Amino acid sequence: MRVTVSRKAHFNAAHRLYRKDWSDAKNIEVFGKCSNPNYHGHNYELIVSVTGKIDTETGYVIDIKILKDIIKTEVEDSFDHKNLNVEVPEFKELNPTAENIAVVIYNKIKPKLESALDVEITLFETPRNFVTYSGQ
Amino acid sequence: MRVTVSRKAHFNAAHRLYRKDWSDAKNIEVFGKCSNPNYHGHNYELIVSVTGKIDTETGYVIDIKILKDIIKTEVEDSFDHKNLNVEVPEFKELNPTAENIAVVIYNKIKPKLESALDVEITLFETPRNFVTYSGQ
Amino acid sequence: MRVTVSRKAHFNAAHRLYRKDWSDAKNIEVFGKCSNPNYHGHNYELIVSVTGKIDTETGYVIDIKILKDIIKTEVEDSFDHKNLNVEVPEFKELNPTAENIAVVIYNKIKPKLESALDVEITLFETPRNFVTYSGQ
Amino acid sequence: MRVTVSRKAHFNAAHRLYRKDWSDAKNIEVFGKCSNPNYHGHNYELIVSVTGKIDTETGYVIDIKILKDIIKTEVEDSFDHKNLNVEVPEFKELNPTAENIAVVIYNKIKPKLESALDVEITLFETPRNFVTYSGQ
Amino acid sequence: MRVTVSRKAHFNAAHRLYRKDWSDAKNIEVFGKCSNPNYHGHNYELIVSVTGKIDTETGYVIDIKILKDIIKTEVEDSFDHKNLNVEVPEFKELNPTAENIAVVIYNKIKPKLESALDVEITLFETPRNFVTYSGQ
Amino acid sequence: MRVTVSRKAHFNAAHRLYRKDWSDAKNIEVFGKCSNPNYHGHNYELIVSVTGKIDTETGYVIDIKILKDIIKTEVEDSFDHKNLNVEVPEFKELNPTAENIAVVIYNKIKPKLESALDVEITLFETPRNFVTYSGQ
Repeated sequence: MRVTVSRKAHFNAAHRLYRKDWSDAKNIEVFGKCSNPNYHGHNYELIVSVTGKIDTETGYVIDIKILKDIIKTEVEDSFDHKNLNVEVPEFKELNPTAENIAVVIYNKIKPKLESALDVEITLFETPRNFVTYSGQ
Repeated sequence: MRVTVSRKAHFNAAHRLYRKDWSDAKNIEVFGKCSNPNYHGHNYELIVSVTGKIDTETGYVIDIKILKDIIKTEVEDSFDHKNLNVEVPEFKELNPTAENIAVVIYNKIKPKLESALDVEITLFETPRNFVTYSGQ
Repeated sequence: MRVTVSRKAHFNAAHRLYRKDWSDAKNIEVFGKCSNPNYHGHNYELIVSVTGKIDTETGYVIDIKILKDIIKTEVEDSFDHKNLNVEVPEFKELNPTAENIAVVIYNKIKPKLESALDVEITLFETPRNFVTYSGQ
Repeated sequence: MRVTVSRKAHFNAAHRLYRKDWSDAKNIEVFGKCSNPNYHGHNYELIVSVTGKIDTETGYVIDIKILKDIIKTEVEDSFDHKNLNVEVPEFKELNPTAENIAVVIYNKIKPKLESALDVEITLFETPRNFVTYSGQ
Repeated sequence: MRVTVSRKAHFNAAHRLYRKDWSDAKNIEVFGKCSNPNYHGHNYELIVSVTGKIDTETGYVIDIKILKDIIKTEVEDSFDHKNLNVEVPEFKELNPTAENIAVVIYNKIKPKLESALDVEITLFETPRNFVTYSGQ
Repeated sequence: MRVTVSRKAHFNAAHRLYRKDWSDAKNIEVFGKCSNPNYHGHNYELIVSVTGKIDTETGYVIDIKILKDIIKTEVEDSFDHKNLNVEVPEFKELNPTAENIAVVIYNKIKPKLESALDVEITLFETPRNFVTYSGQ
């Protein structure tokens, strides 16, 4: 029996949508107010979903405390109360759109879990805008 | 990398569940209080989800402002503060169940997007009842 | 010790903002799309808050089952899946704005409770618009 | 056209994570505070999602009142305000993890629906932890 | 300038509504299924609101980290994953209704804060039932 | 009859907690990670509540469209997608704590409304932290 176990987490961060190899004018043209050079920010709500077989001994797919700790170490400690463009190495050359942030989070969490487990990342940038990535 | 980008929207409308080719008695028998001839209404919450490849230049699957504008033009302008049975042409001969409304919204939004993009519609009729349609 | 006990409830209804003694043109001018003659509708979310002393025997201010039943009888049975303008007597001559609906609900519920209990009505017309009335 | 229709429901229950064939010490070691012998509890939020073809006559995949009644009979009447370990036969020998509860609910609801309908169960144990099972 | 600062927290617990000096029959008659001798449980959502003057030096009424720590020490550590009737001394002789739990939480938190600060406790027993107490 | 009418709004912004007349070390000591010199950010959720008499002619305390427009002009246009410390004049010398932001919003909105109307500002900095100010 394959079940998906999901855990919600949260981090606050500043960012701007921006490519270093574009002029400020082109950044503003393409990304609008999201490219404000002084940054803006979000309360990012994160859902990490892990799919696998129920362990018949424990009744768990994964101990949610383990998943919670991985999210803390891999995401919250690195991203919370940070400026994504300036302080998070993954975004030094990568535009921190919600899509790219979700892919980065997937790539950080997937290797920390048993390889038989599938992972899906849902990231709310605002209560009305969110993205989902599952490694495909 | 395929990512799903979702945008929430909202519209208020009156409707009744009703088939013109049935008697009022049969409509009431099948649809109960949802068939009240004087109408009732809902705050419909809509999620439009678009799946496609991340554009490596922008980091977007789709510019969410473009998606927001399509939702406004195709759904909000046509449905908001309207009587679905009386004022929305798609429901002149089609019973405005949540299922049918989701299909109509899918059929309005899908052709406005690049054909490589997959679309899924989630429609909350009430906070406890919702439907999902992805063109299958 | 005075404590406030609150219960959430829900009803769906159609309405239009409208005064019979005004022309349709004036109704549209003042109330805009909310005055659509074909009606629109909402999922109204209701919170009824009752304030009083804790009964030292039961530990209750009021048995929430009693409050739930009063809300069902006085509000849900009368308003749910109804057209407020057409089918609810209180709005035959009264414009069903959120403000007026809250006052009507207060006036229906207050007399059903012990007179020592204070009542406050919170009514969400949409997730973004709500009103509060406490009999003052 | 295949559409998914979802209905939310709710039940409160006490439970502990516990295997009879393990010592209390081992239960505490593996399940931590969730294994407290005096029990703890949750407001479980349940989403039952049913996927099938739209009936062209009614515009329904399933009459949501029928789905609501099945959830009441199969889940709410059996689980609400109960101690899952002590009073619900399915958990006499089965550890009531969220994963196992979702599987039990699936197995109770699936046979009550037409066999052509697919079913998915989403169960929130807390607002931050939830599981999904669809019979695979 | 007086501002109210609020912090949300969470705990899970089992309880039953019950008076030791009443027979089981009378407990069931008055408290119904909430008096189930095997217990049931809730995800309690707690809001602690503190009102006072803004400190002109820091711009804070209270450092929310201090408030968060007080809630953890006084409420979460004592109540989370516990059986309120059996394991929490305050409810050994006091019926753990939502009203009484809110009063107990108020009485634990108020003395830990500067006396000039007003405190209000809002406690959700379920998403639909909640109580508020402010020491009056 | 006095009724309170509330409208929810939203803005995203970057900020840091910071006093220019303190050293960076003291800012970090007092404000912790909230003082990160590279900024972090939030999705601020705003509720503006207006209390006054129901106009017997319209049934409104205030036309919610007028309130919505005032919030857009006074708050969203100035704060959304901005760096509060750098780009919003009110915070050039004032630390942008949630408390101070709520007071600034109150002071911008109150004079735009009829003087007989009372105003209360509720500002969510995160889903778990929020403040309320009503001019007292």
